[in-house]
Amino acid sequence: MASSLENCLQVIRPVIKELQAYHVADASGLIKLDAMENPYPLPEDLKAKLQIKLSEADLNRYPDPSARILRGKLRQVMQVPEDKAIVLGNGSDELIQMLAMAVAGCENKKRDICLMSFDPGFVMYKMIADVVGINYIGVSLTEDFSLDMESIRLLIKQNSPAIIFIAYPNNPSANCYQESDIEEIISIAPGMVVLDEAYHPFAQTSFMNRLLEFDNLLVMRTVSKMGLAGLRLGLLCGHPDIINEIDKIRLPYNINILTQISVEFVLDNITVLDQQAKLIRNEREGLLAKMKAIPSLQVFPSQANFILFRVLSNDENSTNNSAANDVFESIKQSGVLIKNMKADDGLLKNCLRVTVGTPDENLAFIKALVISLQ
Amino acid sequence: MASSLENCLQVIRPVIKELQAYHVADASGLIKLDAMENPYPLPEDLKAKLQIKLSEADLNRYPDPSARILRGKLRQVMQVPEDKAIVLGNGSDELIQMLAMAVAGCENKKRDICLMSFDPGFVMYKMIADVVGINYIGVSLTEDFSLDMESIRLLIKQNSPAIIFIAYPNNPSANCYQESDIEEIISIAPGMVVLDEAYHPFAQTSFMNRLLEFDNLLVMRTVSKMGLAGLRLGLLCGHPDIINEIDKIRLPYNINILTQISVEFVLDNITVLDQQAKLIRNEREGLLAKMKAIPSLQVFPSQANFILFRVLSNDENSTNNSAANDVFESIKQSGVLIKNMKADDGLLKNCLRVTVGTPDENLAFIKALVISLQ
Repeated sequence: MASSLENCLQVIRPVIKELQAYHVADASGLIKLDAMENPYPLPEDLKAKLQIKLSEADLNRYPDPSARILRGKLRQVMQVPEDKAIVLGNGSDELIQMLAMAVAGCENKKRDICLMSFDPGFVMYKMIADVVGINYIGVSLTEDFSLDMESIRLLIKQNSPAIIFIAYPNNPSANCYQESDIEEIISIAPGMVVLDEAYHPFAQTSFMNRLLEFDNLLVMRTVSKMGLAGLRLGLLCGHPDIINEIDKIRLPYNINILTQISVEFVLDNITVLDQQAKLIRNEREGLLAKMKAIPSLQVFPSQANFILFRVLSNDENSTNNSAANDVFESIKQSGVLIKNMKADDGLLKNCLRVTVGTPDENLAFIKALVISLQ
Repeated sequence: MASSLENCLQVIRPVIKELQAYHVADASGLIKLDAMENPYPLPEDLKAKLQIKLSEADLNRYPDPSARILRGKLRQVMQVPEDKAIVLGNGSDELIQMLAMAVAGCENKKRDICLMSFDPGFVMYKMIADVVGINYIGVSLTEDFSLDMESIRLLIKQNSPAIIFIAYPNNPSANCYQESDIEEIISIAPGMVVLDEAYHPFAQTSFMNRLLEFDNLLVMRTVSKMGLAGLRLGLLCGHPDIINEIDKIRLPYNINILTQISVEFVLDNITVLDQQAKLIRNEREGLLAKMKAIPSLQVFPSQANFILFRVLSNDENSTNNSAANDVFESIKQSGVLIKNMKADDGLLKNCLRVTVGTPDENLAFIKALVISLQ
């Protein structure tokens, strides 16, 4: 007879057992340029004012389940069109999960349902598809990380994806796809198209006002990259009939009281974050110029707060990521943590990703990078 | 040709479209005795100290994805056995959802998977089962809200539930089931058994140390009823091999930085919440005594921070909840919001539920109740 532990492991889906848990690198003692965080804290005067707001929170009471005030401020600051609706998630991750659950559930035993996105892209689209148990179709990008429209047209036709996720700009490649390509995808999509604009403050281009043209378009934003990664707040905007259905999947009190208060407060003082984003954009340009001057690197253009670059290997026949691995480890030895894409082949082979930090942090990174290449 | 909006609504599951969104009553201007909240805020000196801790948070950085420090403190305060593991959720709700997703996904096209619980019970078990698309089997409780073991044995055998949820004490009935019944369920369950001990501070009885006996037992707690409903933190404890699988479903940064800091701080000062729970238990006894003295009420025993009671109708043939509706509305007119179970038939017919508040709030409720019955 099976033990009760074996029985429990038996009822857990094989798909879950095969999953690797999401790995987060240990950054202790290192300059942290691995996670697309805004390096700037709130100024001290704002911190002090926020502290007072937070002390007024009724921690013993449930938060406003609809987060009405917060949604109102988000609408204003993010210029969500008046007749479009907003649903909030505990980070974009939770919104992606809600979307996946909206189109696929265990009762759908007859239909094959799939999510589509573009690879290399944001890892959570596939990870969440796996957890929910939906097919994920990752259409490969071209060598310069643009959309391969011929394949996309064909695969949309063949698979009829319920949702297409488009990261704009894309992570890890940092580029915005061509607007006309995205317009075509929205037009031919048989279901929803989600524009994931997590890096909007650094791209300054958006499909938010295009919600007025396309009923099947949804625009997703987050406050994480704006400078509030610790709070976990994402928003999804679109046609009220669609958002209303997604909202039914939302767990009633998903946005806690302290997040509601903090984001409301920061939105009231949004110019501070706007200025920080501007600093980061300027630093990005400086960093790009310095990196492009290094001959042994291929540096990709960036409209985000991070830069993807390839370490050009001396050994053209090398079949793994060893050139990038060596550079990554050397930079880490110098005290700077960036992201190793760990791709032994494909479009990301020998690629590393660095988040734009403060001027000092970027200088430390450039120094470490130069040493690593010597 | 269908419009793009119609296409989108087409890809959304019919099950979701049929769902009613979770309704939260508007409590503006009312004494709030509807949601099992602890009525006591933190004392001012603790608030001030917490305020300083919160101001030290790096809002621009992602929170510790594993919430290591917080889990350590929870282990100590909640006496989680040393060799058992803990996974955290954004409220118990998120943990219930993770559990449901662990056993059922869209790839399970052959097996019929079900969750089991007992009705009337916590509404989120069924609601989450619906959203995930798993069959929910709600075994009816007996008239005095105890477990109907004969039916349970049969239905477990027939349906082989992947997970059985047992709220202990139960909501809305406020009673703890017999320990021997729960032991039997754990022994015969073919999968996991989750003891949902959300109201533990008021019941002071627990299966936490029974984790050492039963590998298929999981114990769930929350800080919501302890006095931190605004923060949204739940925990699930059990065998590390099981918790490890549930943890893979957890979205990486689900517990935000301010929740981590606040709960850590309050756990360091747990005697304050313990004293509040004691006050509430005392008040509960007083409230129970006063309510039992009212002849037109049937008052059920409580081991929680709320009391279920039935309005005895003069009209024995009445076929709806009108007696309770009238009392509920009258109490609301007097300025007190409680919970109307809105059951036109079944075990909860003409039942209302009141949360134990402060002495003043309870007095206001009793006054309003007496008026409503005149």
